[in-house]
Amino acid sequence: MLQDQLQNKINSKTKPLGALGLLEDIALQVGLTQQTTEPFIARPTIMVFAADHGIAATGLVNPYPQSVTAQMVLNFLNGGAAINVFTRINQLQLIVVDAGVNAHLSHLNQPNFIHAKQGMGTANYLNTPAMTTEQVTSCIQMGKELVIRVAEDGSNCIGFGEMGIGNTSSAALIMHAITRIPIHECVGRGTGSNDEQLATKTNTLEKVVAFHQLHNLGNNPLALLGAVGGFEIAMMVGAYLAAAAEKMVIVVDGFIATAALLVAVQIEPSIINNCIFAHCSDEQGHANMLQHLKVKPLLNIGLRLGEGTGAALAIPLIESAVAFLNQMASFEQAGVSTASE
Amino acid sequence: MLQDQLQNKINSKTKPLGALGLLEDIALQVGLTQQTTEPFIARPTIMVFAADHGIAATGLVNPYPQSVTAQMVLNFLNGGAAINVFTRINQLQLIVVDAGVNAHLSHLNQPNFIHAKQGMGTANYLNTPAMTTEQVTSCIQMGKELVIRVAEDGSNCIGFGEMGIGNTSSAALIMHAITRIPIHECVGRGTGSNDEQLATKTNTLEKVVAFHQLHNLGNNPLALLGAVGGFEIAMMVGAYLAAAAEKMVIVVDGFIATAALLVAVQIEPSIINNCIFAHCSDEQGHANMLQHLKVKPLLNIGLRLGEGTGAALAIPLIESAVAFLNQMASFEQAGVSTASE
Repeated sequence: MLQDQLQNKINSKTKPLGALGLLEDIALQVGLTQQTTEPFIARPTIMVFAADHGIAATGLVNPYPQSVTAQMVLNFLNGGAAINVFTRINQLQLIVVDAGVNAHLSHLNQPNFIHAKQGMGTANYLNTPAMTTEQVTSCIQMGKELVIRVAEDGSNCIGFGEMGIGNTSSAALIMHAITRIPIHECVGRGTGSNDEQLATKTNTLEKVVAFHQLHNLGNNPLALLGAVGGFEIAMMVGAYLAAAAEKMVIVVDGFIATAALLVAVQIEPSIINNCIFAHCSDEQGHANMLQHLKVKPLLNIGLRLGEGTGAALAIPLIESAVAFLNQMASFEQAGVSTASE
Repeated sequence: MLQDQLQNKINSKTKPLGALGLLEDIALQVGLTQQTTEPFIARPTIMVFAADHGIAATGLVNPYPQSVTAQMVLNFLNGGAAINVFTRINQLQLIVVDAGVNAHLSHLNQPNFIHAKQGMGTANYLNTPAMTTEQVTSCIQMGKELVIRVAEDGSNCIGFGEMGIGNTSSAALIMHAITRIPIHECVGRGTGSNDEQLATKTNTLEKVVAFHQLHNLGNNPLALLGAVGGFEIAMMVGAYLAAAAEKMVIVVDGFIATAALLVAVQIEPSIINNCIFAHCSDEQGHANMLQHLKVKPLLNIGLRLGEGTGAALAIPLIESAVAFLNQMASFEQAGVSTASE
C-alpha cells in the first residue's frame, strides 16, 4: 500500500518513468524505511570504529605496522584524514570510537571521540580465539548503545567506518565462513600489500581457516566473531542491529563494513531492508560480497580506504534521491504532457 | 613537472597509494587544468540549453509531443524539475538558455533565463538540413559567449545539460557519423520509447543517414551539425570550446551532452583534457561513446534524464576530490608511519 503510494509519487514526477535509475530505488527504499511518502534525511552521521588485531603484530598480513591504527585515530581527532575531509565537505556528523586500539588514548577528550575500549587489541587468532565470548557480547551491546544515542540525538541516517591494521584479514575470514567462497578469492591486498605480501597473507589465512575449522562456524555468528573477528567488527554488528531497530537508513561502506553486515544479517535478516550500499571497493572480494547479498552499489570508483569514506561520498546521492521525491513537480503540477501512448 | 608535484602531493596523503581510486585521478586532472597544486572549485554551474527539433513534429522518433520542451522550460523556471532539485541541494548555479524552443518565451524575465533563440526549432532533417550554415555558426558563437560570461562571473567549473524533445535522435546520428558505429547501435529509447516506437525511430534514422550521406560528414563537424544537429547541441559545442579556452573544469553529462562533445573534440581535440565524465547513461549508445573517447565515468546508476542531472550529481564527488588534495594531512604532518617495505 505505502509501496504503491511511493511508486505512484515517483512515477508522477516530471521525468520519463525510471529515468532517475538507482535514485528512484533509493527514494522508494527510504520511504519504506521511514514508513512515509515524505521521507527526509536528518543529521547524517559517520561512526568510525577503531581497534587493533593480534595477528597484525606478526606482520604476516599487513605491510603497515600495527601502530598506524593509533596514529590514524590521532589523525581523525586532528581532522586530517580522508574521512574528516569528506564528512566536512558533505556536512556529516563524524564520531570516532576507540573500540580496542592498542594504545592509551583515555586522556584524549573530544566531544566526538568515544572511549569504548574492549582491550588492547584482540588476541592473535593464529593460535587462539581473537575474542572471548564476553568480549563479543560486550562489543555488540556497546555498538547498539552508541547508535541508539546517535538516533536519540536526531540522526536517522548512519554509515559505519573502521580503522584497524590487519582487519581486512578478519573480514576475508568472515566472508569465507559465511559465503563459502574459497579463501584465496576472499583475501585481497588490504592496505597496500604487494604480490609477495599477498601470498604470505593468503597462506597465513589458510592456516587460520583450518585451525578454527571455519567451515563449521558459517551459521554461528557469535562463535565466528569470537574466533576471527575484531572489536571494531563486532561493535559494527551491534551498530547495524540497533540502527535497523531504530528505523535508520544505513549506508554500508566497503569490504570490512560489509563483512560485519554479513554477520549482522545472519542474526537479523530483515536489516538488509534498511541498507543502501555506498560503493564497490577495489579490495578483491567486495564485489563478490555484494553479489552474495544481491545488491547494487551506488559508486564504483576504485576506493579501498575504509574509514567510512565510501559511505560519506555516497550520502549526497541519497540526499538527492530523497530531495527529488519531495521537491520535484508532478506532470499535473507543472502542466507537462505525458507520453502519447 | 607540475604533474609530478601533484602526484607526489597525492601520494603523501595519509592513505595507501591509490586508495581513493578515481578521485585521485580527478584531483590530478583539476590541478593540471588549473595549473596549480592547490586547485579549487568556484561557483560550479549547470547550463541547460533547450531547443526543438523539426523531426519531433512527425512523431516518428519521440513518444512525448514536441510541446513538452517548452513545458519543461517553464518547469525549470518554476524550480520543479530534477535539475532544479539537484542544483539546489548541491548548491550549484543553474542557468537555462532558450536556444530555439518552438514557443514564444521572450516575455519570461528571470535572471538565470537567457534568451538566445536561433529559430522556432530546427527544420525537419528527414528531407532538408536541420540548420543553415549561418545558424550553426551563430549557435557556436552564442555558446561561447554565454560560457565566457559565466567564467567572468567567477565560475571555474561547468556542466552542460539539454532539453529538447527528439534530441536523442540528433545525438545518435552524430554519434554514428563520427564513431562509425552502426546506427542501430547508436539509437536508444530516448524519453521512454517502447519496442515498436524504437523500431520506428531506428527505421526513420536509417533513412536520415542515407539522405544526408552521413558517412561523408564524420570529419566535417560544421556540416554534420547543419545536417542533423540541433540548436542546443550546436550551442553546447561552442560552450565546450569556450569552457576549455577559459581553463574551466568541464563536467560532461549524458548521451546528448557527450554527442556534442564528440563534435567539439573534432574541432579542438585538447578540450578532452578539461573533461570529467559524470556518468554512464542508461541510454543505449552512451557506454559506446565513452569507450570511443577512452574515458571512465564517475557514476553508473542508470540515469537517462538529461537536463545536466548526471553532471549535477557528480559535482560533489569532484569537490571531494579537490578537498582531499587540499585538506588531508600528509604522513609527515600527521606523524603516521608508512608501509614497511
